[in-house]
Amino acid sequence: VAGLNEPLRAVEWVGEQDGYLRILDQTELPGRIESIDCRDVDCVWEAIHSLRIRGAPALGIAGAYGLVLGLSGELHLDREAFLRRMREVSARLRTCRPTAVNLFIYLDRLEAAADRGGDSARQMHAALLATARAIEAENAAACDAMARHGAELIGDGWGVLTHCNAGALATAGAGTALAVLVRAHRQGKRIRVYADETRPLLQGARITALELMRSGLDVVLICDSAAAQVIAEGRVRAVIVGADRIAANGDFANKIGTRGIAVIAAEHGIPFYVVAPTSTIDPGLEDGDSIPIEERDPAEVTEGFGSRTAPEGVRVYNPAFDVTPNRYVTAIVTEGGVLEPPYGPAIQRVLQD
Amino acid sequence: VAGLNEPLRAVEWVGEQDGYLRILDQTELPGRIESIDCRDVDCVWEAIHSLRIRGAPALGIAGAYGLVLGLSGELHLDREAFLRRMREVSARLRTCRPTAVNLFIYLDRLEAAADRGGDSARQMHAALLATARAIEAENAAACDAMARHGAELIGDGWGVLTHCNAGALATAGAGTALAVLVRAHRQGKRIRVYADETRPLLQGARITALELMRSGLDVVLICDSAAAQVIAEGRVRAVIVGADRIAANGDFANKIGTRGIAVIAAEHGIPFYVVAPTSTIDPGLEDGDSIPIEERDPAEVTEGFGSRTAPEGVRVYNPAFDVTPNRYVTAIVTEGGVLEPPYGPAIQRVLQD
Repeated sequence: VAGLNEPLRAVEWVGEQDGYLRILDQTELPGRIESIDCRDVDCVWEAIHSLRIRGAPALGIAGAYGLVLGLSGELHLDREAFLRRMREVSARLRTCRPTAVNLFIYLDRLEAAADRGGDSARQMHAALLATARAIEAENAAACDAMARHGAELIGDGWGVLTHCNAGALATAGAGTALAVLVRAHRQGKRIRVYADETRPLLQGARITALELMRSGLDVVLICDSAAAQVIAEGRVRAVIVGADRIAANGDFANKIGTRGIAVIAAEHGIPFYVVAPTSTIDPGLEDGDSIPIEERDPAEVTEGFGSRTAPEGVRVYNPAFDVTPNRYVTAIVTEGGVLEPPYGPAIQRVLQD
Repeated sequence: VAGLNEPLRAVEWVGEQDGYLRILDQTELPGRIESIDCRDVDCVWEAIHSLRIRGAPALGIAGAYGLVLGLSGELHLDREAFLRRMREVSARLRTCRPTAVNLFIYLDRLEAAADRGGDSARQMHAALLATARAIEAENAAACDAMARHGAELIGDGWGVLTHCNAGALATAGAGTALAVLVRAHRQGKRIRVYADETRPLLQGARITALELMRSGLDVVLICDSAAAQVIAEGRVRAVIVGADRIAANGDFANKIGTRGIAVIAAEHGIPFYVVAPTSTIDPGLEDGDSIPIEERDPAEVTEGFGSRTAPEGVRVYNPAFDVTPNRYVTAIVTEGGVLEPPYGPAIQRVLQD
């Protein structure tokens, strides 16, 4: 259990090649800070599926370590059998959540690393672990770079609106959008963060508010539906969010509710910033229309607070994400720099760097 | 307790001049259908303040009967003392909620009726009760007229989005926005209603979904933040909401979240309809900027529905309403007909009818 002043880590590989994966159970926040130790792939699958770990980079990294775990008991296999088993485990991990692309990109990278990692299962397994660790370290470094680039966009005295959680617990480092705000705060800029509570699972209320308070920022929690009024009242100078998948043209998927805020920000002439590592970009998708949108359990909406809050038998539509067209996006902050429209060529350039 | 097929009544005066006020406790919906019987003005004040009864017309009518109750024990007073006491009770009732204007308009009307109602306290009290009953009956008739006018705007096969609850339980009749949808449904039009759950108090999930299911409509519950995606996916052909106060230029206050939906509807070229009786119009307010916006208890956001969902000590901003500028409103449906822009003269005309 982490103390109030220790940073919270979403995910941590404990030990060496025969190690295990420690996952902070974010469904228990803010009331309890508890971890679960996963020693097999089912545990990781369930933790991602149930949002014990969430956030595109963090769940992707958990999935990468999940592949390592899933092969830990297969070191007796020959090369072909190991690779076959690896592809089975990877295919299973790819079913836990569909929208964030990082998981798929990381698993592709682990599979390729194992394939060229050696002839023995032990060598290939070591390559999987080394690659997962490299991805984790790269993500932490990317968070720092995004924070550095993004903080330049935030002015002293600003109110800033954010949605869902794009903080440390969504990544393996300081976060994406929230890392920018924490950095700006540490630069001495006085900022007030309006945090949408983010129904149905309240990641804004439960996690963003917690992270920002622990980092000493001035945070004001609002209902998602209050964003338009908060903007209309002149309280907000910029909107800043993370992303779960960015298409080649800059359209992006993020937590349900993002699109509406983007439209409202544009209506009020307020900049709308997306902060995400390049591993969130899916260059294979021409635009946002083909991003798969996860639909989740109706009970998240009807029984979300420990009590039934809707009539029995009511039909529910519960998309977990929405897609925001690139025309609403002022800039995309990546570890490779701040991308501006037109996003097609800007995204091509940053991926080639 | 009303059976599943009996209509629910938000408010009901039971008995004659020495009667009492029965209020359906809407905070217990949808789990329990329970009423409270108010025999004094404190009970009514608390019921309105706590949203046991809500909706601009319904809470206004409850307040009107509250004034009757508050004078029931004062029949021994002489005319001047009775009128003085009446003004005290009225002033107290005017403090229970600030945004909906109907309460203030109804209390004005009761006070004037008592003043010209006779010389004795009993006569003046009878005038109060008769006026409250007249307001209730007029509101029920207005609901029917709004439903008739509004149903003409709704097409067969449409998806329609609504926010908060503008149904029977917000009025003394069939409702405002929801009465339009029920009427269209009874005309044989196939419509699907997307109901925003309406944080923080979930009037959409708890009350709108219940009312529409009881009326046999096809209702789909969504999180407030899903409205933009639902509209972007082409599921919705119109937005229809109630109002708590309409300024002389057509700007209007309604449940927090309304403004954002209006902006999104305009962005997608979808009509946005407001349905409200003329008693919701405040011709004394030039525009929406001067509508007082109620701020409510942070606990509605941090401890909704039985569990703590945000860190201890977090700051909260919880405006209960927002103001939507008239430029986003396609039409305002009143009992006097469908008003179209420019709203200034249209509102003047309907108030003179």
